[in-house]
Amino acid sequence: MTDSASGAGFGLDHLPYGVFSVDGGPRRIGVRHGDSVLDLAFETGRPELAAASLNPFLALGPQTWSEVRAEARALLEEGAETTPLDEVDLHLPFEVADYVDFYASEHHATNVGRLFRPDGDALLPNWKHLPVGYHGRAGTVVASGTPVVRPSGQRGPGDVGPTRRLDLEAELGFVVGAASRLGEPVPAEAFADHVFGVVGLNDWSARDLQAWEYVPLGPFLGKTFATSISHWVTPLAALDAAWCDLPGQDPRPADYLAPDTARGLDLAVEVEIDGTVVSRPPYRSTYWGPAQMLAHLTVNGASLRTGDLFGSGTISGAGAPGHAEVGSLLELYGGERFLDDGSTVVLRYSAPSTDGGRLTLGEVSGAVTPAP
Amino acid sequence: MTDSASGAGFGLDHLPYGVFSVDGGPRRIGVRHGDSVLDLAFETGRPELAAASLNPFLALGPQTWSEVRAEARALLEEGAETTPLDEVDLHLPFEVADYVDFYASEHHATNVGRLFRPDGDALLPNWKHLPVGYHGRAGTVVASGTPVVRPSGQRGPGDVGPTRRLDLEAELGFVVGAASRLGEPVPAEAFADHVFGVVGLNDWSARDLQAWEYVPLGPFLGKTFATSISHWVTPLAALDAAWCDLPGQDPRPADYLAPDTARGLDLAVEVEIDGTVVSRPPYRSTYWGPAQMLAHLTVNGASLRTGDLFGSGTISGAGAPGHAEVGSLLELYGGERFLDDGSTVVLRYSAPSTDGGRLTLGEVSGAVTPAP
Repeated sequence: MTDSASGAGFGLDHLPYGVFSVDGGPRRIGVRHGDSVLDLAFETGRPELAAASLNPFLALGPQTWSEVRAEARALLEEGAETTPLDEVDLHLPFEVADYVDFYASEHHATNVGRLFRPDGDALLPNWKHLPVGYHGRAGTVVASGTPVVRPSGQRGPGDVGPTRRLDLEAELGFVVGAASRLGEPVPAEAFADHVFGVVGLNDWSARDLQAWEYVPLGPFLGKTFATSISHWVTPLAALDAAWCDLPGQDPRPADYLAPDTARGLDLAVEVEIDGTVVSRPPYRSTYWGPAQMLAHLTVNGASLRTGDLFGSGTISGAGAPGHAEVGSLLELYGGERFLDDGSTVVLRYSAPSTDGGRLTLGEVSGAVTPAP
Repeated sequence: MTDSASGAGFGLDHLPYGVFSVDGGPRRIGVRHGDSVLDLAFETGRPELAAASLNPFLALGPQTWSEVRAEARALLEEGAETTPLDEVDLHLPFEVADYVDFYASEHHATNVGRLFRPDGDALLPNWKHLPVGYHGRAGTVVASGTPVVRPSGQRGPGDVGPTRRLDLEAELGFVVGAASRLGEPVPAEAFADHVFGVVGLNDWSARDLQAWEYVPLGPFLGKTFATSISHWVTPLAALDAAWCDLPGQDPRPADYLAPDTARGLDLAVEVEIDGTVVSRPPYRSTYWGPAQMLAHLTVNGASLRTGDLFGSGTISGAGAPGHAEVGSLLELYGGERFLDDGSTVVLRYSAPSTDGGRLTLGEVSGAVTPAP
């Protein structure tokens, strides 16, 4: 089967998972192949796939994930019937349990530190010792395509109104499948035992709300109005060829952060606004790797649940703010330009595939609608 | 029916909701009356009560909450059969959707600000303009009685190990029943349309982890290892006599924070460690009221889900650190003394009841177990 133009990057080496419906019917789990969707519950008869979200399937862990991937591939190779993408509606692929967002790009943290704390150190003392992160709002994670209403709030003392500084943040999201037990840290080496795959993620940000509220307990309303993720979850199994070295960590992180073995992912990101690509952040430049974030998240014994989502933080490459490898408008335009009502943001992601070509990960789109 | 000694405060004017099981059987929804539990699903036949958590019932909103409360009271007045508390196991009463923790006590924020930032302003510039808050980890909210494993993590640069500064935070938690729509702020006046009731809450904190990690994105691993809540959810309907004036807000908050009508709750809290009451924080001294926290949480259009939980933040009364109205050991002992392995913390709560007596809210207990 040959990929069509728009289905390029969705070959048999990819097969991402999503939730779809046809003509307002029940939600079903499918895998995308080219420009069409295979109905997994119908074709495999597996009970864990007869659900309106991926969660029951994700909960079963790596062995089931491998089996289903092999079954899906075999079905497609045998010519199983699929439904064209343009005949389906796509939905949020999984129920988000807890949403954590990290701050793992050194270039982003440095750029933002300079802008938010012009008189202080750009990078704070803890930053190179641990992947700094915080919890976001799981209930406002929405699927790609959901309109984003311009949020209102306090822009400063006594100043309430719609944000004037609406920004995007281009990130990668990691989806936890298999749970862990309270009180038992998950080592970095167990990453693939728990993490099922990745999604594209736009962590929309209202910079004026954020700047006023964030000291001392961190971002809150400047972020919680919406976080968009892709319809498609790319399984780790499809990313075997994308692992790469981290850019280098100095000082050496603590042992639980697996400094000798931690790796990164060579994903390319594109940020498009109203049809124009404005930046191309390289995820491989990110300081802290995915398994390090997972190990840190659980080192205190915090448990994982099926559906936990953790974001990389804004992905920005090296260079001064304003260059075209940054993952936010704050960095791209130095705080001089943000998103207008009516603007549409699309984040696109690609990665080397195991067959030597490239995977196209699910895109994340969202249009800004005016404050009510 | 007369309350027994230990059932005092659980009369017909209270009737809090919980989830129980008998002899390892299925979980069931009950109301507590005195020292016994009424099986609500069995006695009322209502389908929304035939569940292992309160969530389906909470989702139905204030009219159903009133009807069920009246039915429960009538059943008990008619002498319906109940099960003695000592024959049941109690469980987490609801599935937590998002967990937000505020920082609403001026005395606590001032005390902690002095300790964490000895060279800066104790109270930051935004504090009197908005209820500062952040998201915690919903997946590690546990029921009263669950042991708390001493968490490990980074106590400073290159220093990994079990926390040496394990603390409690005595708080009140508010439980959201009825959901709201994304993009539509919930006004302070709609508090009782969405919030079902309250729980006792202990926001366990590892102060060394927290101090090292919390800049700039807020508390993370210093809090996410466990948050304990009471088994019993006291409905707002039982707290009609507990509303009181707030201590006073200057400067006047923005209109959406309802400065003319916002009220507080006159709840008394006791902090007991290993059988000794060490502090009695008064919730009525808290600067920001519950409806103000709700309005702030949603002013940016963030939606509410059934099961959302928001905490008051540590409850501390007026006076210098070390006096006996503070809600944390950090404040009580100025950072000189924290929780030992084997210590048991019990938080108790009471409030004026509508019949002129006092309600005893569900207690929150937890014993510290050593790091593995």
